[in-house]
Amino acid sequence: MQLMRRKKKVSANQDHHIEAFFKIVGEKEVLFEDVDMLSYNCDGFTIHQHSPKAVVFPKNTREVAALVKYCAQNDLPFLARGAGTGLSGGATPLNNEVIISLVKMKGLLSVDYENRKAVVQPGYVNLHLTNSISSKGYYYAPDPSSQYVCTIGGNVAENAGGAHCLKYGVTTNHILGLEVVMPNGDIISIGEDGVPDSPGYDLLGLLTGSEGTLGVVTEITVRILKNPEMKQTVLAYFDQVEDGSRAVSDIISAGIVPAALEMMDQTAIEGVEEGSFPVGHPRDIAALLLIEVDGIAAGIDEQIEEILAVCRNNHVKEVKVAEDDAERGRWWANRKTGFGAMGAISPDYLVQDGVIPRSRLPEVLEQINEISRKYELRIANIFHAGDGNLHPLILFDSRNPGETQKAVDAGSACLKACSDAGGSITGEHGVGIEKIEEMRFIFSDEEIEAQTRIREVFNPGNLLNQGKLFPMPGRCLEVKKAVQ
Amino acid sequence: MQLMRRKKKVSANQDHHIEAFFKIVGEKEVLFEDVDMLSYNCDGFTIHQHSPKAVVFPKNTREVAALVKYCAQNDLPFLARGAGTGLSGGATPLNNEVIISLVKMKGLLSVDYENRKAVVQPGYVNLHLTNSISSKGYYYAPDPSSQYVCTIGGNVAENAGGAHCLKYGVTTNHILGLEVVMPNGDIISIGEDGVPDSPGYDLLGLLTGSEGTLGVVTEITVRILKNPEMKQTVLAYFDQVEDGSRAVSDIISAGIVPAALEMMDQTAIEGVEEGSFPVGHPRDIAALLLIEVDGIAAGIDEQIEEILAVCRNNHVKEVKVAEDDAERGRWWANRKTGFGAMGAISPDYLVQDGVIPRSRLPEVLEQINEISRKYELRIANIFHAGDGNLHPLILFDSRNPGETQKAVDAGSACLKACSDAGGSITGEHGVGIEKIEEMRFIFSDEEIEAQTRIREVFNPGNLLNQGKLFPMPGRCLEVKKAVQ
Repeated sequence: MQLMRRKKKVSANQDHHIEAFFKIVGEKEVLFEDVDMLSYNCDGFTIHQHSPKAVVFPKNTREVAALVKYCAQNDLPFLARGAGTGLSGGATPLNNEVIISLVKMKGLLSVDYENRKAVVQPGYVNLHLTNSISSKGYYYAPDPSSQYVCTIGGNVAENAGGAHCLKYGVTTNHILGLEVVMPNGDIISIGEDGVPDSPGYDLLGLLTGSEGTLGVVTEITVRILKNPEMKQTVLAYFDQVEDGSRAVSDIISAGIVPAALEMMDQTAIEGVEEGSFPVGHPRDIAALLLIEVDGIAAGIDEQIEEILAVCRNNHVKEVKVAEDDAERGRWWANRKTGFGAMGAISPDYLVQDGVIPRSRLPEVLEQINEISRKYELRIANIFHAGDGNLHPLILFDSRNPGETQKAVDAGSACLKACSDAGGSITGEHGVGIEKIEEMRFIFSDEEIEAQTRIREVFNPGNLLNQGKLFPMPGRCLEVKKAVQ
Repeated sequence: MQLMRRKKKVSANQDHHIEAFFKIVGEKEVLFEDVDMLSYNCDGFTIHQHSPKAVVFPKNTREVAALVKYCAQNDLPFLARGAGTGLSGGATPLNNEVIISLVKMKGLLSVDYENRKAVVQPGYVNLHLTNSISSKGYYYAPDPSSQYVCTIGGNVAENAGGAHCLKYGVTTNHILGLEVVMPNGDIISIGEDGVPDSPGYDLLGLLTGSEGTLGVVTEITVRILKNPEMKQTVLAYFDQVEDGSRAVSDIISAGIVPAALEMMDQTAIEGVEEGSFPVGHPRDIAALLLIEVDGIAAGIDEQIEEILAVCRNNHVKEVKVAEDDAERGRWWANRKTGFGAMGAISPDYLVQDGVIPRSRLPEVLEQINEISRKYELRIANIFHAGDGNLHPLILFDSRNPGETQKAVDAGSACLKACSDAGGSITGEHGVGIEKIEEMRFIFSDEEIEAQTRIREVFNPGNLLNQGKLFPMPGRCLEVKKAVQ
């Protein structure tokens, strides 16, 4: 019914606007029939789905600016989209938006090894950058689990993290400059290359993680890093979640900063072992830790010895060091495809993303257990333990009436537990439409007001990615209703 | 003459406003006679000096909010000030401001070792934090050279760096949360503790380094770090600046990330050896490098060996490793008091602060030499070479007619050279009033406009720290004239 209404609306305006898009990007680069646009009805947060007005594929900054200017002048809501792997609905159309897909702007424009930076277009796939520069001994650090398909433009919008952000930081720590098309069509450049403290306000930080609500990023200068001389990876199995949690704290207390420090609980292990990359983890353990150390070769072995000792002190059941890159690679493939692997043990799942002070890990994990019992839904935990960045995966079956809403509510309860523990409602997946109401757990009305006023500076007509990131009167109600 | 005019203006309004301040903070906490306020006429950038309207010393957030609200309601320009060690005039009154001095809000409110954070008031001195927590094995990383006196509130305003920001990042990388009094007197909290990607816009990043133009920071949650298990420090003397520069690049290329990588040229060495902390550096060398590596003990020795090898490959004249903490401490005292030491070889000096891509170090240093010859002023270079963060110190004598302006122009020419080399006009000292015109070297009118619109969101009446950070028509002219 809703779909039909939308469709009719598109048809009424079609000739006029769609033909304008044809002129800007060429006829082949515009989708406008609902059937062609099905995969653009949502991103990786699939609970909300709405049809866009059109999907257009610009090939350069000039075309993006022309599209944005056209939308601004004609009062058409619009949003930018990368690979659509976002997990909070940031690229989901809510208002019949024109989607500006940046997947055809996928060039690696330049690499400057001496000053350790590269310039990419927003549609360039995260992992392609590391693949392109690894022969010279360099890599790009932010490594979201979707890195083999997600785009760096999308990473900038969401300030994406990844398993290795414990040591290396999230996307914002690796962005040196941006070219941005502002919501009025102006093109601006922000950030200087390699400047520790750029003069003026930190617009680079402001834009990074703004979830596509302040401008459309058309070019990105990123920091590249020299490959660590050596890596070692430890896998540790525990019979008690508390022992694993304590090992996490003890490793950090020992002064070691692992490149990654990941945890999975029993339900998660069941999922990954049923998924596409099983590695033979035992099913009867309570938790596992995956710990990686990297750096110059000297000293790595000593750190590994210390990590093994910490595990033993915390009653580890079994612990081993990866024998070679192949084994390390298998362990990571098993971990990084973990979210998707939940599909093997549940028809549907909802990924949550909260953050807590590391010291409160055992207590919050126990609260998540209680939430699981209360809502009668299994919850798997795969997460960046070193950062205190939890990812409860709420398993549900959308065919059971009301179960989708139950999963959403259980997710919200998990976020409440995180925020009550002094943490926050998102570690790396963003707010999007998913967590708009939960923003009230952590922000007062005045604080939300201060933020929305910034949006108005950049985006006075509020045409760009409407209804995302901040609760607005009316909008929240509408979003909540749409969940049914 | 100017001073007298200002004095008269103060007197006319004195009773009314000054008495209001008495009521808010108590009579003893208000200065309002010009003679009492002399040391508040400027900060560490002494070229501009103007008398404030009053200096008030609040003791808590409530008093700050009441003062700010009073100023807002009575249309009184105001600004916040820490220790006044800033080098770009950010705390200098230009418009007969009410100065809110935060030096009496100097408490360390709490330390949470387990989650590695501390909460301080803005007037807390940078080095006091490390001193307070070092017995437990922790420290606070940002270490501007003025750290023994500068306040963490001022560090937040300027996004202060320091010798160790090469490895550890600048202030913004160590701030987890802020309590801020907005220019209308509202109190807001921003940032979550330890969250890699805080939801909403990055206001924490926006406020940090905003040079006191967006709000008055009244409480700061900072990250604290575990002391590195071991440190080693290398001192290397070179006969050619180019050899030293190449050693810098080669160390980074070797995959080593030193905690600090500092350089001084011959003129700078002359200054520090005449200053309060001479250590016997030879006077006949062209440049020295001070290189520190830290981390877990295993591996440090190998890194030092590699650094020594790099120095030898680059024709080092003499190279040595600090024998103990005492020797290391002497080398650092000599370096950190370097700016002030210029007073020993010149009646006046102007510190500049530009950034360039590391690879262009030799070329830009040569340009600075040319600027020195052209303006007939000696220029010493003491700088964070690893970051490409230059600090040309322009030596002059303000008693010679026109020489102050010549020094300012030479400084501006140095910044132009940096920006033309693909760098920027400030690495860590901020823009303040000093570099307001130079903002045009790197920002277009549209970009400056986007930034000033953000200021208007926070600071609609433009009462807070007027005339700083961004060029405004009229203002620039006025500032330039005042330099005479």
